[in-house]
Amino acid sequence: MIGVDWGTSSFRAFRLAADGRILGRRSTPRGILHVEGGRFADALLAEIGPWLAEGERRVLLSGMIGSRQGWVEAPYLPCPAGAAELAAALAPVPFDAAQVLLVAGLSDADDSGTPEVMRGEETQIVGAMQALDGDGLACLPGSHSKWARIAAGRIAAFRTYLSGEAFAALRSGTILGRMMQDGPTDPAAFDRGVARSGDYGHLLHHLFGVRTLGLFGRLSEHESASYLSGLLIGHEVRAARPQGLTVHLIGAAPLCALYARAIAACGGEAVLQDEDAAARGLSLIARSAQWN
Amino acid sequence: MIGVDWGTSSFRAFRLAADGRILGRRSTPRGILHVEGGRFADALLAEIGPWLAEGERRVLLSGMIGSRQGWVEAPYLPCPAGAAELAAALAPVPFDAAQVLLVAGLSDADDSGTPEVMRGEETQIVGAMQALDGDGLACLPGSHSKWARIAAGRIAAFRTYLSGEAFAALRSGTILGRMMQDGPTDPAAFDRGVARSGDYGHLLHHLFGVRTLGLFGRLSEHESASYLSGLLIGHEVRAARPQGLTVHLIGAAPLCALYARAIAACGGEAVLQDEDAAARGLSLIARSAQWN
Repeated sequence: MIGVDWGTSSFRAFRLAADGRILGRRSTPRGILHVEGGRFADALLAEIGPWLAEGERRVLLSGMIGSRQGWVEAPYLPCPAGAAELAAALAPVPFDAAQVLLVAGLSDADDSGTPEVMRGEETQIVGAMQALDGDGLACLPGSHSKWARIAAGRIAAFRTYLSGEAFAALRSGTILGRMMQDGPTDPAAFDRGVARSGDYGHLLHHLFGVRTLGLFGRLSEHESASYLSGLLIGHEVRAARPQGLTVHLIGAAPLCALYARAIAACGGEAVLQDEDAAARGLSLIARSAQWN
Repeated sequence: MIGVDWGTSSFRAFRLAADGRILGRRSTPRGILHVEGGRFADALLAEIGPWLAEGERRVLLSGMIGSRQGWVEAPYLPCPAGAAELAAALAPVPFDAAQVLLVAGLSDADDSGTPEVMRGEETQIVGAMQALDGDGLACLPGSHSKWARIAAGRIAAFRTYLSGEAFAALRSGTILGRMMQDGPTDPAAFDRGVARSGDYGHLLHHLFGVRTLGLFGRLSEHESASYLSGLLIGHEVRAARPQGLTVHLIGAAPLCALYARAIAACGGEAVLQDEDAAARGLSLIARSAQWN
């Protein structure tokens, strides 16, 4: 079968054996925002045509491709949900050259009744479930970071933090960005930002401190972006309160490494999952649907 | 004398009698960012020339005009400081048609040693000191909101929150803004945002909720911006912890009214000062310098 993790800004396809082994992979920046005029069938065919020509006939999609801005809008399943629930809710997608199904997203509500949604992350979490041993805490850092509590092999609840997108907006749209230079993350400056977040609940005040520390020569233009990143990730980690639970980090290695650093500084423990959780999740959901 | 509150984006001049009465006023959008090539002397002459022609010979400036990006860089005085300290530190500015002096800014440090700065707000606070009766809490909402503790007629300490600038950046630079329409503040949606901030320390999570509430039809495009404003101001007010102290709000009336609403919802008490605090402050500082 073919599994595709099709997000807003990236397209990652895997050719998968029946036992889940990855036989081939393909990664492009052709996320759903970069497919003109909603021609998703054409885009898919262009990307996986060679595998179809070699006889693949089943394609399982996950991610924002199932959103209102995507190809077909798949439902949100309420938590708790795991591979079995997702397998029972696969949505068909019209496509000539193969049978295409879509993994549903998940929804939840926090204590205030505010809705929560994810699309794509549920599949990655399912793929990391074995490492999680069925229970624990998963974190998927990104523009909209997800923290999910896993219980009895299912996603029991989750919360989203806008940290990544807030970082980008604060950097490009406020006076803070005027004193920042591009470059690799400065670990010491990042750590200082994380430490500052220990003054819990004062994020809006700490943001102004990025400016004054620069103004008084205590953060260089090179360090400022790393400090801001540490501030935001630190506040996120402290709000998510991972104390006592090992956090399984799922996603791109460089960002996961920063999160691991912040979690350790906040007194938690983190382990990094490999970057193929999506492929494993797609395979496990297909297997649960007896469709692999 | 002539008093000028010359900020980043606005220029407000007052013709003042020796007893502080406002004899005339002039307000333009000619903030320091809108004075080309640093020609501040020309800009000042163009704005207050008629008053100089009528015999005024003393001009006192406050605000960002005294910053590195301004005309002459005035120092920051450390807290605590009041009218007397400011009067003793007026900085001369070269100008042919009158004697021009600049009010210094103030600096402070929070518990972590992170520096704090203000320029212009110190003059407004001095102007509101009488209403404060020498003790209490002043809040000057804006892009960089200032909360100042007043003791024995001086500014004892202050903290800055980036709430206003964060609002603008989140609105223009994230997915949240795509579901927002311009319009007057919706009080009920603003109140919902303030109430949400009661879940202290979870701002980054609450920001994502702006999106999901919109996605699920529980915030209209018209309400979303007001809700986001309530969230940010609510988190700021709770971090500033005004409990037990009356907050004296200094600034533009519509924004001050929103802050008063948020402070009341958080269990505090607020009173609005009039918008002429800057004029009164300039007059009081000049009087303290025996220069009016």
